[in-house]
Amino acid sequence: MDEFEVERHADPALDAPVLVEGLPGVGHVGKLAAEHLLEEFESERVATVYSEHFPPQVTVEDGIASLAAAEFHAVDADGTDLLVLTGDHQAGDGPGHYRTASLFLDIAAEFGCERAYALGGVPTGELIEEYAVVGAVNDEALLEPMESVDVEFRDDEPAGGVVGISGLVLGLGERRGLPAGCLMGETSGYLVDPKSARAVLEALGELVGFDVDYASLEERADEMEEVMEKMQEMQAAQAPSEDDLRYIG
Amino acid sequence: MDEFEVERHADPALDAPVLVEGLPGVGHVGKLAAEHLLEEFESERVATVYSEHFPPQVTVEDGIASLAAAEFHAVDADGTDLLVLTGDHQAGDGPGHYRTASLFLDIAAEFGCERAYALGGVPTGELIEEYAVVGAVNDEALLEPMESVDVEFRDDEPAGGVVGISGLVLGLGERRGLPAGCLMGETSGYLVDPKSARAVLEALGELVGFDVDYASLEERADEMEEVMEKMQEMQAAQAPSEDDLRYIG
Amino acid sequence: MDEFEVERHADPALDAPVLVEGLPGVGHVGKLAAEHLLEEFESERVATVYSEHFPPQVTVEDGIASLAAAEFHAVDADGTDLLVLTGDHQAGDGPGHYRTASLFLDIAAEFGCERAYALGGVPTGELIEEYAVVGAVNDEALLEPMESVDVEFRDDEPAGGVVGISGLVLGLGERRGLPAGCLMGETSGYLVDPKSARAVLEALGELVGFDVDYASLEERADEMEEVMEKMQEMQAAQAPSEDDLRYIG
Amino acid sequence: MDEFEVERHADPALDAPVLVEGLPGVGHVGKLAAEHLLEEFESERVATVYSEHFPPQVTVEDGIASLAAAEFHAVDADGTDLLVLTGDHQAGDGPGHYRTASLFLDIAAEFGCERAYALGGVPTGELIEEYAVVGAVNDEALLEPMESVDVEFRDDEPAGGVVGISGLVLGLGERRGLPAGCLMGETSGYLVDPKSARAVLEALGELVGFDVDYASLEERADEMEEVMEKMQEMQAAQAPSEDDLRYIG
Repeated sequence: MDEFEVERHADPALDAPVLVEGLPGVGHVGKLAAEHLLEEFESERVATVYSEHFPPQVTVEDGIASLAAAEFHAVDADGTDLLVLTGDHQAGDGPGHYRTASLFLDIAAEFGCERAYALGGVPTGELIEEYAVVGAVNDEALLEPMESVDVEFRDDEPAGGVVGISGLVLGLGERRGLPAGCLMGETSGYLVDPKSARAVLEALGELVGFDVDYASLEERADEMEEVMEKMQEMQAAQAPSEDDLRYIG
Repeated sequence: MDEFEVERHADPALDAPVLVEGLPGVGHVGKLAAEHLLEEFESERVATVYSEHFPPQVTVEDGIASLAAAEFHAVDADGTDLLVLTGDHQAGDGPGHYRTASLFLDIAAEFGCERAYALGGVPTGELIEEYAVVGAVNDEALLEPMESVDVEFRDDEPAGGVVGISGLVLGLGERRGLPAGCLMGETSGYLVDPKSARAVLEALGELVGFDVDYASLEERADEMEEVMEKMQEMQAAQAPSEDDLRYIG
Repeated sequence: MDEFEVERHADPALDAPVLVEGLPGVGHVGKLAAEHLLEEFESERVATVYSEHFPPQVTVEDGIASLAAAEFHAVDADGTDLLVLTGDHQAGDGPGHYRTASLFLDIAAEFGCERAYALGGVPTGELIEEYAVVGAVNDEALLEPMESVDVEFRDDEPAGGVVGISGLVLGLGERRGLPAGCLMGETSGYLVDPKSARAVLEALGELVGFDVDYASLEERADEMEEVMEKMQEMQAAQAPSEDDLRYIG
Repeated sequence: MDEFEVERHADPALDAPVLVEGLPGVGHVGKLAAEHLLEEFESERVATVYSEHFPPQVTVEDGIASLAAAEFHAVDADGTDLLVLTGDHQAGDGPGHYRTASLFLDIAAEFGCERAYALGGVPTGELIEEYAVVGAVNDEALLEPMESVDVEFRDDEPAGGVVGISGLVLGLGERRGLPAGCLMGETSGYLVDPKSARAVLEALGELVGFDVDYASLEERADEMEEVMEKMQEMQAAQAPSEDDLRYIG
């Protein structure tokens, strides 16, 4: 295999599609959001990227193995063309991160993308009640429209910058003249977070102009809440009471 | 040394041999199984692969050092030709994993392999009574024959996919049109597991058409059981009783 | 993106400028010192270096993302030309360290640098009262002038040598015939240390011939002291007293 | 800098010199032994190797920095020519290990080396009374001469093979037809071990035909013993007695 192999599945004519990156990251927020778009709208897989910079592994579904890859899908979101990038992995090494991000932007350019949104999560370390969406942009012109849909630009967040593919969509995008914004849903950082994905998608929908049903994301959110409750019960059952501690002592 | 060096030892005419990969992994199941084939059947070493992607080390046997390598052996398994790949190491870096796997498949293609089985273990985290074999394939056509020899295809296993060379035999094999199945014996994951290797070989024998004696694997299994019993005794002797704990407290 | 991309912003005629390296490291001493020069003197950004060897990330300030980079600034320090190198990151892999350092020295050579100082911190593991500056050079001729401004050359420090970009400015500089000295301010190693940065700048100013105001560094030092006091109070509040310990027991 | 840079200092005519590798490793045994040869015999530095695969750092001695490097010295050991390879570092990445080892063997070949000994330590995890030397070879013909000078070849040691440059001198040496033996002094593995270095040198001297004075190594051994005694006293002073433990409980 070469360093990268790109398989083309279709070449639909897209009208200045918006690149939407949703690869795995904090709380799997970006990936959940991107996959929700693929489920809810009409979509077509247009390209698959394989790379020696992805982890050396296959995922298995119903016994069928698929090599680590990232996929581009053309999505018709209420009449707006999106080019949605998702998959199971980010690159595993630093230079590999830069090279895969560059290739992704090359492919986006071929499809005529003139704007990009990188979706992800920003960890807060505590449970979230109100799911705010924190923003970052590579072009000042994007600040106002994002603020107008309640994306928050904060002085001190995200503290360590934006790491990985979302950061590079902004950073390398800027160097190519591709205006890009990052939409980061607040999330505890401990669990897969469908509610944070919904908050991110609501902001994206307002920015790009689509409306989507969130029933399936809400269902997943309910499942996650059940999982969390069970884990809390298990912890409570295992933790010795203060009395126990004194007795053992 | 180049990135890879392949030394050819023999060039036997093989009849569409089945590639059998058994490099080290969980419970050393694949390696044990592959080496058992080399011991029990007539076999000939046909090629050795050296690579800067293997760990920088030699193994030492009776004072004689051998550079980290992977070896291909031609095996006559009751009339069926196998090309068995085994060795002491997998690659040490991500891109190296992809490149060694590609090279292995190149060599297999030169010998005319038209099907591959990757042997390995799947960790359960607990002691095993009945050694099930879990499967994954890169081609739907392999599902039925593998199910017919009691290989289990499960919705949720292996949870993290298949990592390393076994995963890449499937993933890169698919991209070259080489049908490949993975046979993963259940194993605790804590110890070298000859019983799991036997379960994997029994499935492989039924699939490929050979019968092999398991006496030496059973012997190793008995040795491992003795080791485990000793370790349990040692733990029991070291662990303080509840009374002890109260006293110390 | 290529392995390296260098963006030129200006090409001022500099008079044998002194290269001053202040990338992040122990106590952020070098970076604080370099940035203080940019703030206090007239300066102009002359070049930005991007590289796949930097971490794959952007920093975000007021919502605007900037790709990981190192920057060269031309600084007029009381009539002495400096070429100040700073940024948010060092390289993330070993060979990348060598390659970025080589490129930095190439750029310095283009601007006519004939001498270099690498600024940094040397960790002592304890709080500092008197901020000594420890030195290392790649050319014996630099020993005497540095000693004359109270830079200390010690038998046994820095114990592990000088690691990262500062070390390579000396090591690779020597191989190119660029005389270079390292000025390492003592610092606890636990916190960002503006006082250590001041000590380093005072030595540099005497060596190179500039005088600079330290009010803003002193302000930051006061802020850091407040942070430290708060942390100590928090620790004191959390730590159980000896009585508590006996009781729990 | 290139991936490797070799600086030649001298080109003495050597008579089939024996390559002696003593880079840092377990107990610094090989390095101590190699440096002892340089101190006790007449020696001349003939080549220095720099590489981006060495750690990005300089060592500092009396304020003077030296870039990470490996050095070859021609040594006249009682009339036998040795080519001694030592330095402060091994390579920092797997492929870098293979590439530096290959380059070292290229240089050794240029000087006409027809035999090599790799010096090192083998960790036992406990304090040593009698310093045995464990061997490994890449050529059966070396077994007998090494056994005759009491080098021990053991069934099960070294358990994990020989890792790093010593292993590669054997492994890559074998692939080039360079007979090589590894002399590994037993050492606790916790401390720099001059006594183990002496044991290794005694074996090497008998094999190669030289006699050397060990006074300076013995002095270092005495120093190390003092260090150890102090550390044991400190531990004893810190460790609570059993009585203390009951009281705290």
